[in-house]
Parts: sequence; structure tokens; C-alpha cells
Amino acid sequence: MGHVSFHVDPAAYKHWKVTYDGTVATVAMDVAEDGGLQPGYELKLNSYDLGVDIELADIAGRLRFEHPEVRAVVLTSAKDKIFSAGANIRMLAAAEHSWKVNFCKFTNETRIAMEDAEAEQGQAWIAACNGTASGGGFELALACGTILLVDDRSAAVALPELPLLGVLPATGGLTRLVDKRHVRRDLADVFTTKSEGVGGKTAVEWRLVDEAVPRVRFAETVAERAAQAATALAAQRPRPEGARGITLTPLNRAGEGDEIRYEHVQVTIDRDLRAATITVTGPSAPPPPTPAEIDAATWSLAAFRELDDAILHLRTNELEIGTWLLRTQGDAEQVLAHDAFLAAHADHWLAREIVALHKRTLKRLDVTSRSLVALVVPGSCFAGSLLELALACDRTYQLDGTFEDGQQLAVITVGPANLGVLPMANGLSRLATRFVHDPAAADRVAARVGEPQQAAEAAALGLATLTPDDLDWDDEVRVALEERASFSPDALTGMEANYRFVGPETMETKIFARLTAWQNWIFMRPNAAGPEGALRRYGTGQRPAFDRRRV
Amino acid sequence: MGHVSFHVDPAAYKHWKVTYDGTVATVAMDVAEDGGLQPGYELKLNSYDLGVDIELADIAGRLRFEHPEVRAVVLTSAKDKIFSAGANIRMLAAAEHSWKVNFCKFTNETRIAMEDAEAEQGQAWIAACNGTASGGGFELALACGTILLVDDRSAAVALPELPLLGVLPATGGLTRLVDKRHVRRDLADVFTTKSEGVGGKTAVEWRLVDEAVPRVRFAETVAERAAQAATALAAQRPRPEGARGITLTPLNRAGEGDEIRYEHVQVTIDRDLRAATITVTGPSAPPPPTPAEIDAATWSLAAFRELDDAILHLRTNELEIGTWLLRTQGDAEQVLAHDAFLAAHADHWLAREIVALHKRTLKRLDVTSRSLVALVVPGSCFAGSLLELALACDRTYQLDGTFEDGQQLAVITVGPANLGVLPMANGLSRLATRFVHDPAAADRVAARVGEPQQAAEAAALGLATLTPDDLDWDDEVRVALEERASFSPDALTGMEANYRFVGPETMETKIFARLTAWQNWIFMRPNAAGPEGALRRYGTGQRPAFDRRRV
Repeated sequence: MGHVSFHVDPAAYKHWKVTYDGTVATVAMDVAEDGGLQPGYELKLNSYDLGVDIELADIAGRLRFEHPEVRAVVLTSAKDKIFSAGANIRMLAAAEHSWKVNFCKFTNETRIAMEDAEAEQGQAWIAACNGTASGGGFELALACGTILLVDDRSAAVALPELPLLGVLPATGGLTRLVDKRHVRRDLADVFTTKSEGVGGKTAVEWRLVDEAVPRVRFAETVAERAAQAATALAAQRPRPEGARGITLTPLNRAGEGDEIRYEHVQVTIDRDLRAATITVTGPSAPPPPTPAEIDAATWSLAAFRELDDAILHLRTNELEIGTWLLRTQGDAEQVLAHDAFLAAHADHWLAREIVALHKRTLKRLDVTSRSLVALVVPGSCFAGSLLELALACDRTYQLDGTFEDGQQLAVITVGPANLGVLPMANGLSRLATRFVHDPAAADRVAARVGEPQQAAEAAALGLATLTPDDLDWDDEVRVALEERASFSPDALTGMEANYRFVGPETMETKIFARLTAWQNWIFMRPNAAGPEGALRRYGTGQRPAFDRRRV
Repeated sequence: MGHVSFHVDPAAYKHWKVTYDGTVATVAMDVAEDGGLQPGYELKLNSYDLGVDIELADIAGRLRFEHPEVRAVVLTSAKDKIFSAGANIRMLAAAEHSWKVNFCKFTNETRIAMEDAEAEQGQAWIAACNGTASGGGFELALACGTILLVDDRSAAVALPELPLLGVLPATGGLTRLVDKRHVRRDLADVFTTKSEGVGGKTAVEWRLVDEAVPRVRFAETVAERAAQAATALAAQRPRPEGARGITLTPLNRAGEGDEIRYEHVQVTIDRDLRAATITVTGPSAPPPPTPAEIDAATWSLAAFRELDDAILHLRTNELEIGTWLLRTQGDAEQVLAHDAFLAAHADHWLAREIVALHKRTLKRLDVTSRSLVALVVPGSCFAGSLLELALACDRTYQLDGTFEDGQQLAVITVGPANLGVLPMANGLSRLATRFVHDPAAADRVAARVGEPQQAAEAAALGLATLTPDDLDWDDEVRVALEERASFSPDALTGMEANYRFVGPETMETKIFARLTAWQNWIFMRPNAAGPEGALRRYGTGQRPAFDRRRV
């Protein structure tokens, strides 16, 4: 598997055509058959691979920052008679387990980002299925707030993964059917076992789509629904007339392999320890005076874009680097000042978009299958939005004292940004999740907003896990990292996935927990991925040979 | 793997000693090393296999029916210095995947039944860890409402599964630590990676145990806590002084293989279709006049005990029988009369116990990895508590019309028992779960309590999935069953596990969904179960060889 880049130049999209018409954008899927990320498969019938989804994620991100005027996004197909056939099966059949899992994770994140755009930012996604939407293609439509299906004798929506491939519709499909579309569970069962799917009136009756529209009226109806959505959302969440977007300039990334440098983020890899250190540098300048001066270089935007890219790079390209050490350096007061600037302008679309980017980036950390360890030392700036990095970690080491005379003490500073504006997938802040069963502890922490906490206080407040002094620090951290590196990577993934989401569950946590975990299990089972399994035998003319024992 | 029986004769317990002293019972674990269910391993250090847990489940059940006077159950060890070492590792290492999964499911059900005893019936379980409780041993303690640990230099609680075996503490361990004991997630991370565990003061500080008590005061403190619990629970939920238990007589089971007959339950297996038909016969007599006349032969008790046994038998011993057809036959009015009798005496301990047994039995169905299909035909009695069988199913076929002239129409009758007294693991009734996102539909159904619904009405109300007429019935059902039998068993398991729990999540659903699914995945991974994996290499002196890629 070659190195995957998540940088995309919108001028060079291979698979999508984006057009703008006032408050409505149209995102048309037009997958290039020979444009796969890897050799060995053709992306026929608008089937997709990771490369197609990387472009879609880029489009969704740019729609928010570069096109604040867009209120409704029509997601459709530029091909005739097919909306999308879903994830490419030959790609999946040939892929290693880790690739399949990473692919599903990223596509799930992209679908959730589409939903967030409507829920939080008033940018509605409307699926205009001008042909059959099958498997991941229908799951893509399910991520839209509205689904229109052309009503003719052939167009259908379908989830044929189970009958045809022996796997689940696990890009949120099962969960969204029952918990978002509110399809009754027994009808969902019938639908999910029916490889040819359902169209027309039945698709509407079963709540699979919102409308089935004859082909002659399809374009017109889609345009109407888009205009209605745009108007409705504009009323709910007004944006200033004539707001102009900012351009997301290419990230400035240098180095490769064991050392990668962005402007505010640095990644170094210790291959013996199988650990990467991600260091985020705090702002070197105060926030701009007004939101009008925000641009792509503004720290709170630039640093999190870089961090997001670093997370995706390490997650996809550095599978053996099992532990990520999260560090920060800089001036905590400046971090809090940038947070305060965003909070003060929470009614400004761009300030909101930046906070939403923080949220999405931090949520990527939460579902990353790596051990996450925060190291708080003199010179760190774990405050507010950057403290979220530590709160996302599995454990936090904070130095008690200093390494040298005259150093500032290592501190942690809770800021307003930690109290709710950056929710996890479970709908709670990381602090609220940490103390979900101990509200008194949550209150104690909230009472200390803005006060730097040294190691002993941070431990007492429940913010730091372990607080070695300078004599013990190196040994204790090294032993912990060596130990972590000695454990079964799979068991660590399972443990972390359980501990990171304490308390309540949402559709989103169900997708990443229940649904994903079952799919990962199925992906390991010979019935799907073995040489005689359904995924490998699909399209060969041979029927799969199943071990019939139910587990 | 030989045929496993879930029948237990309390006079022949191999692994437990149960003693009674007024309102306190002591259940002492004393596992017979040579008493394993299969050859090939020794149950040293109070380690356990399925046979040990079958006895524990029997004890828990009898404590409720046969010993209403017991208010507090002290769970302890009859061995010196060890409480329990958890699930036997050699057993696990040698077991097939399906066995491991079934074993974990049953032990989880037993732990939850212990918790139910306190929450619903006022019978508290107190873990008196007179020595180290490790792995599944500590998970057993975690299922108790109170945990006391002897405080000496050696006793500890530990979850060493991850560091030593490369698997998860998945008998609820991870979930109960954070969501029941309210251990902070980063401390839980430290604890779960520390194979030697934690004892004394730290175990209390981290909330792993409630008290650490010096050995000299241990017995006395345990007795005190048991007496306090008994008194507190007696105040909360009084039982009549001098209530006498009823004896759970041995089940009357005849036949084997393809046809098994109990008094009220019949199981027939069609091996070509890989389907079992479970037919529950409704009551042939009215309920007893008063609760004092209830005995083990009373229909509502006997039928559900038999059904529970049939479920466990099929689940464990008939792995290739992938579809269960649920049928009922008899008089719906009589079913409702028995339900009404239990409801009218909801303040009587024994009526409550029977309803609680219904609840536990139905919950076993919910987590059973088989496709569940209800068949509603003339002569069926899907009403009230028996309608729950259909509501637990993945889909329901109801005949529209009759097979012969003069037959009664097939009907479904919602009863009061369907409206909340039989909650699923998610805390909602099956009806409420079915309509969790459609309260108007739930209201429509609730308004029809007591009214038999024919096929068209049942379909309109959302109670029946498909309603073929007599001309189509045989073909439609047969094709559906053949189709089901042709699908990947694993994908069906994953799909059903997702659809059966719509809406909210609880600790219990998290255990069966997130935690179990991750563990099942890990059990498939070579890092655990492969020849060089941690589970297989444990105790050999060889270190496991891991594929270091994080997934």
C-alpha cells in the first residue's frame, strides 16, 4: 500500500463536479473508472474507494469555509441511471483488514461531517438519487437530511451487503435506518436482506426515502426542495448577506518519514518505541481584532487543519506506530485568548466554522485506534482548546515540579472551551464525559476555569493521571511506553474503544462502537474474507462456502 | 464438544457451597480442579468454565424462588488466599471461537441476573474477596453491589486479560468499571494494563472496591455489611415475614436431537432448512386463585423455565440451526388471564419472581445469535407475555385469513404485559423499542390492549411484518427461510445485533454490544487466538508474537 495523502487540490478533483448557483451547490458524483487510489480495480458505476471519499471530505470542508452563501447542497450523480453502487467490491476484497477498517472509519467521519453541516451550520445536504443507490451509495444518501429517489421501474435503494457480500452495511447504514430514518426494525430486516432493494411508493412507506418522484419532474422537484431547505435554514440561522468565504490554502508540510513539520504541528516518530510525538505549538500572535480579518493563516484555523492532516496521515500510513504522545508548547494565555475570540464571535459564521473544525478534529482523535498519552511539562500550553488533546487521551502524565531550576511549572488550564462547545460523539464535552458519574468532581473542575493547575492540584481534580517528579519522569514515562508497545495491539484497540465513551450513547457512538465492532469481526471471519468467503467470491460466478455455525 | 446440559441438581453441585443463615446466604466458590466440563484443563485457583457458571446461575435462580427469606448473598471463596482466578485460560485457549462467544454470553447473563436480584427483588449480592480476585474473578465481584477486599500484602483485584492474554475483560469488566463503579477512565486504563492489579487503599481510592479490610476483621465486617444490606433492603421492599419458597422441580424433558418435548414447549428441528421450531403451548387451566397456590407446575412459571432451557440448549448445542421459528398454540384469553393474575399480585414476592423470570428468558432471546421469526397462524396465542416472543423476533409472519374454512383467524393480542413490565436490556419494553421513534404508533397500539388484531390490522399497527394469505403462505415462508439459510451466518449475527436494540443504550446493552463485539473481534485475531497469539502462548514460557499494526 502506497503512502496516502489527504491533501486535495480542488482544481484536480477526479471524481466529483461541484457547481454553485446562489445558495445552492450541486455536488455530482462522477467517479473516474480508472481513477482508483491503487491498481487492481475499476471504479465502475460510481463505486468508490478512499480516494473518492477524500475528495468528498474536501468538498464538504470547503463548502463550509469557502462558501458560506451555500445553504443547500444537492448530492447527485452525473451518471445516467445510477446514483452510486457503493464501496468498490474488488477493492474491499483485495484489501488488508487494517485498510478496510481505516477506510470505513474515514467514510463514517465524512458522513457525520455532512450531517453536522446541517445540524450546526445550516447547510443542508439533499440526496437526489437519479438512479439506484446501492450499499455504500445508499449509505451516502442516508447521511443527507433529505432523500429523493427517482420513481421509475428500475431505480431503487438497496443495502445488498448482507445477501451478496456477507458483510454489513457498516458506513452507518444499519444504525441510520432505524435510529435516523426511523425504519421499523422488522422492515429494516426485510430490506437489508433483499439484494434488489426497494423503490417507489414502498421506499417512501418504509421511510427509506422521503419522496419518490417521476423522472419527468425529478430535476424540478430537487430544485424546489433545495430552495425550500435553503430558505428554511436561512430563517433558522441567518448569515450576513454577502458573507464571503475564505480560501483554505494548501497546508505547508515539510519532511516525511520520521519527522514531519507543519507550521504549528510537528510529528516525530520513535520506531523503537513504536511511538509518535505530536507537538502542537500555541499561537505566537494574538487573535485578529475582528472576524473579518480571519484567514487561513489564523492560528486556530491553521493549527487544527494541520493537526487533522497529521492524525489522518499517522492513522493511515503509520500502522505500527501504536502510541501517540500529545504535547503542546507555547503560551497558554494566548491559546485562551484565541478561544475567547472565537467564543466572543460565536454568532459569526466563520468563528463557528473554526470551532466546528476543532470539534471534528478532536473527534477523529477519539476514534483513533492508537494509545493516546498526553505529556504535560514546563513550556506546555494545555489550556482550553488544546487541553482537549489531553482530555481525549487515555492517560495524562504531568510533571510535578520542574526539570531545571527557574523553569515554569507544568500546568493544565481549564478554559471555557472545555465546558461544552467541543462535544464528543456522545454529545457531552470530554470533561463531562470524564466525570459523567461524578458531577461534584465536574463542578470542582468547572470552578477553576482560567486557573493554571500544577501537578498535585491537577491530580486531585482528576485532570492528570500520573504526576512523576523530575527524578522519576524519564523512567516512568519510558517504562509505560515500552509496556504499552509490548501489549497486543488489538486488545488495546478494544480497551480504548470501550473506555473512551463512558456514559450516554448516541447514533454516532453506536456507529463507531456497536456497528463498527461487528463489522470488524465479520471482516475477520472466513465467511466474508476467507478464500471461499462471500466478499472474495463475489463476481466470480462461484457461490461462497460458509461455515454454517452461528456465533 | 459434547452436549451441554443446563439442568443442575443442587444436591450435586461440584463447585459451590451454599449455606443459609436467616436472611443471609453464603455462596462459597470451591471449584473442583478435576471437575471441568471437558477434558484438557484443570480448574485451579477457583478458575471456572461453563460448568461452574451453570451451577452459579442455578444457585442465583433458586435463591430467588426457593429462598425468599434471603436478603443478602455473600459471594466468597472457600479456598485460602484466592477469591477466583477467572475464566480458565487453558479452556479458553483450546476452545473454538463459537464456544468462547457462547461461554461469555452465558456468564454475562448470569452476572446481570445477579444485579437484577438486587435491583428488582431486594436480594443483595456482596462480594467478600478473601483473596485475590483476578480477571473473570474480579468481574464476578463487579457484578455484586458491594465489594470487600481483604487488605493484606498480597490480596489484590486485577484485570490482567490485556497484558497477559491479549484479550479484553469482557464479562462486563471494562463497562462495569467505568459505568457502574464510576472509575475514572484514565485510572481504568492504568488498572487494566497492570497485570498485578491493585490492593488496599489504592483499590478503594480508585473505586475498584468499596472497602479494604484487614484479615483479622474481614469475616466480621462481611457479616456486618450483609446484615446491613439485608436490613436496608427489607425496609425498601418488604416481604411477608415467614414467606416460604417453592421448589424448582426438575424439568420434564423428553426426546433429543430433532425433537424435544417439555410439558409446554416443543422443539423440532429441520436440518435441511437449518431451522428449529419452538412451539409454546398456552395454559390449559386458569391461574391459581391466590399466589399461595403457585407451585413449580403453574403455567407461567413452568412454561418459561422450559423455554429458557430450550433456548440455552439450542444456543449451545445446535450451532448450525441458524433460524428459530417461534410458534404458540392455545387460548390467548388464558395467557392474558395468567398475565393478569401476576399483575394483580405484583406486590407478592412470588408473582414478581415469575415476571422477572419472564424478563430474563426473553432477554436471552434478544441476545441470541439466531434469526428469530414468529409465525402467527390459526390456533396461535400470541397475546401478552407470549406476544413478547413475536416482539423479540426479527420479523413476524401473520396469516391473512385461514388455511381451512371454519378456522379461527390468526390474531395478535397486545396485553398489559407488553407495556412495560418486561423490559429489554435497554430499559424499554419491546413495543416501546419497536416504536421508539414513532410515539404515535406506540399510542395506537397501546389503545388496542386486549383486542385481537387480524392480519391487516396487525400490519397497519406495525405488529406484523408480512401477512401472506393461505395461497402464498407456504411458499413465502419457505422461500424466506431458505434465503435466510443461504446467507452468511456472521453477517446475520451482526445485522440482528444492530437492529434488535434501537434507541437508548444502557450499561447492559453496552456489555452485549460494544464490549462483546470487540471481544469477538479480538478472539478472531491471530494476536490472541493464533498459534503465536497471547492466549495460546500463555503459560508456555514463550512470549507471544504480535502483528504490530494497529487496526
